Amino acid sequence: MLTNAKKIIKELERKLNPSNVLSTKEECYAYAQDASNSKEIKNIPDAVVFVKSKEDVVTVVECAKKYKIPIICRGAGTNTVGACRVEHGGIILNFSKMDKIIEVNKENMTATVQPGVILGDLQSEVEKIGLFYPPDPSNLKVSTIGGSIAQASGGAKTFKYGSTKNYILNLEVVTADGRVMKTGADTVKNATGYNLTSLFVGSEGTLGIITEATLKLIPKPEACKVIMAYFNTIEDAVSAVNSIIEQQIFPATIDFMDSNAIKTVEQFYPAGLLCDKEAALIIEIDGFTKSIEYQQNVIENILNMNNAAQIQISHNSDEYERIWTARRSSMGACAKLKPNVTTDDVIVPRGNLAKLVRGIQNICKKYNLSTCLVGHVGDGSVHPQIPIDYNDEDEYNRFKLAKSEIYDLTVQLGGVISGEHGIGADKRPFIDRVVNNVALDYMREMKKVFDPENILNPYKIF
Amino acid sequence: MLTNAKKIIKELERKLNPSNVLSTKEECYAYAQDASNSKEIKNIPDAVVFVKSKEDVVTVVECAKKYKIPIICRGAGTNTVGACRVEHGGIILNFSKMDKIIEVNKENMTATVQPGVILGDLQSEVEKIGLFYPPDPSNLKVSTIGGSIAQASGGAKTFKYGSTKNYILNLEVVTADGRVMKTGADTVKNATGYNLTSLFVGSEGTLGIITEATLKLIPKPEACKVIMAYFNTIEDAVSAVNSIIEQQIFPATIDFMDSNAIKTVEQFYPAGLLCDKEAALIIEIDGFTKSIEYQQNVIENILNMNNAAQIQISHNSDEYERIWTARRSSMGACAKLKPNVTTDDVIVPRGNLAKLVRGIQNICKKYNLSTCLVGHVGDGSVHPQIPIDYNDEDEYNRFKLAKSEIYDLTVQLGGVISGEHGIGADKRPFIDRVVNNVALDYMREMKKVFDPENILNPYKIF
Repeated sequence: MLTNAKKIIKELERKLNPSNVLSTKEECYAYAQDASNSKEIKNIPDAVVFVKSKEDVVTVVECAKKYKIPIICRGAGTNTVGACRVEHGGIILNFSKMDKIIEVNKENMTATVQPGVILGDLQSEVEKIGLFYPPDPSNLKVSTIGGSIAQASGGAKTFKYGSTKNYILNLEVVTADGRVMKTGADTVKNATGYNLTSLFVGSEGTLGIITEATLKLIPKPEACKVIMAYFNTIEDAVSAVNSIIEQQIFPATIDFMDSNAIKTVEQFYPAGLLCDKEAALIIEIDGFTKSIEYQQNVIENILNMNNAAQIQISHNSDEYERIWTARRSSMGACAKLKPNVTTDDVIVPRGNLAKLVRGIQNICKKYNLSTCLVGHVGDGSVHPQIPIDYNDEDEYNRFKLAKSEIYDLTVQLGGVISGEHGIGADKRPFIDRVVNNVALDYMREMKKVFDPENILNPYKIF
Repeated sequence: MLTNAKKIIKELERKLNPSNVLSTKEECYAYAQDASNSKEIKNIPDAVVFVKSKEDVVTVVECAKKYKIPIICRGAGTNTVGACRVEHGGIILNFSKMDKIIEVNKENMTATVQPGVILGDLQSEVEKIGLFYPPDPSNLKVSTIGGSIAQASGGAKTFKYGSTKNYILNLEVVTADGRVMKTGADTVKNATGYNLTSLFVGSEGTLGIITEATLKLIPKPEACKVIMAYFNTIEDAVSAVNSIIEQQIFPATIDFMDSNAIKTVEQFYPAGLLCDKEAALIIEIDGFTKSIEYQQNVIENILNMNNAAQIQISHNSDEYERIWTARRSSMGACAKLKPNVTTDDVIVPRGNLAKLVRGIQNICKKYNLSTCLVGHVGDGSVHPQIPIDYNDEDEYNRFKLAKSEIYDLTVQLGGVISGEHGIGADKRPFIDRVVNNVALDYMREMKKVFDPENILNPYKIF
């Protein structure tokens, strides 16, 4: 427990009501971990504070500043890189009670939300009036908008629609010195001063605390359909993707599963997947009903010309859900293979994707680890899911060596060590392998500008 | 002339070859103005330096640092806010010789370019292989990629496709201390550290000098068509736009012209426009050929239900060009009314667009100024084009008062004073009306981090 922890707990209980401050060891323990499932939990939080308004956030920031206690923001805790873990003491700022959709404005095509809003809830809400918020990380039924902004989340539809950063117009932020600012405006374009909004997207709670966001919405596509195709080689799958784009087809999503992912899902959640194939593509097309059949025909032809072993097409919402459930079950299925499972997030220019997939498979083989590879082919993005037993010290060491080699390979192939999950605590030791020193220098200087006393999510990113 | 100007000119002539350094008064005079057509030119450049490589840029930066001489970057000089004017001395860095398209990578769907590449040339080049770079400021046949990044340019297609910032993946930047950095990676997603790339987009040459950019491309839509519709009131026009979006149609462009813009274009470039109407919408639809007819039918019905007085549809590329040429001729036509003309750039959430248009018309009437209003209805973006005679002192004073009121109105309506042109020198006095003090403080701090000696385009933005 940090030196001043007792004092800040007492002050926050008085100012925010004791019911909003958790401070027993048992209560805090529940917030020591996030979806990183990391073995290396250094600390439990000194306290967990529930906030209900920006005024509450200002109160916490002022106390944190006074007592020099770090603040770590947390939405649903679905973070996979330890960005909402407490590394060396501090208080968790829990946003689960700041979960209001403040406004959905049809005419402006914007939504204004608090950070604790569940992503999937927002999507359902705006879709009721024919609008669409595309970012769709696979945990969207539990993860929050605040977290998705902090980590610059993507999702399957990034290929066509871009990621979270393309949909954030304006943020209300409480700064490290307890002031409140708007980073931009609620307009769809803004060339008025530096783009602070984009700077905050992906800053992982290290530069300021987001208390409200205005999001850009677009008209919802009229129809969609999903096509699943199996291939005997990952190269054939990637070649099919290139041909689809050559035909000027722009699918919403081009996802993939490797053979291990297919087999593991089928083992635990049988869905009739073809377990003898090396790769499957999951292609979602959308647009006007009139264009769906055309797109489907062009894509089917291309898949066949690129040696697709089998093609399944969703003809109704049940079939649509069945295919997507299979793709999204991969992490859950992996978790049944060993006591622990972790996911990762590497990305390369698409031209190098087949090399990255083969390379990761080989590295895991070399270190005698199993891995399920899923990801977004369209983006060049791979999520290696590695089942592991943390009690097996030797396996854990091999796991760490494999990770390091995967990052080296990614960088060699012109990629970065996170496309949509962030760096957090877990990838911090690796950031200087991919971000050049000059850029890192400026990032560190910017951190000092926004958080000179280093109280906002310290020990993260760099 | 700045104290050290002669020294730096001599040193640059030696290091870069005299043919790349212009320093006579006559030569420099040609670079004193930009497309802002501002009356208030404070200074002419001390020299104009042509660079051919990032090494040349480093050389210039090192000299500028040594002699404390400002550097102002310039592409084609199409900037409308004086961002590439020299305010209090300095050298113009001319990028017209750094105009190579280094690579168009079909598989990665990226292009790597030097800053001096003409935007329209890049578009033609990538369209040859079925790809598409959507940002399309109306001066794209002369303006450069570098300038469009520096000013966060938008264009007609921003409504559907987003603006320049959505298409910049990675930048090579020479920093104020002469180092070279990459701001990101050539991947379509990146959550590895702070988003320096987006920070540089729209920073108007004040944070660093862009020497190379990697751009994101998308598949080119198969077909497009433009629909022009006239209305008796601006409110009917805006109501039609809302109904189109309610039907989940997502046009590439929804532009407009007000009655003065229609009349002025028809006066000087007769195109059969209906001069008795208060507003015209120019709607471009795109997508699969199969969907064009459907979109057109839905839109035509909606336009009729919203009292469209007449609807014209492009049936071939000549008709398509004729409609767009009329829309784009507005500035040229305005220039024929008086010796000078300026354009502006204000934006509000779309729900307030009709109020903004009416308000600007009233303000100009009050000050006895004529104005042609064109803009992007979809985005809530208006470009008031005001013909003026700078020799008429009284008119110029009224012009300045009108501008100030237009900005106040924009802010009242929840907007900002630039959506896609930037702030530059000309709007600098107004930025604190729209950006809050806390955000401005941080912007100023960031400027100090990146350019502690204030040699990069000083006296701009704030």
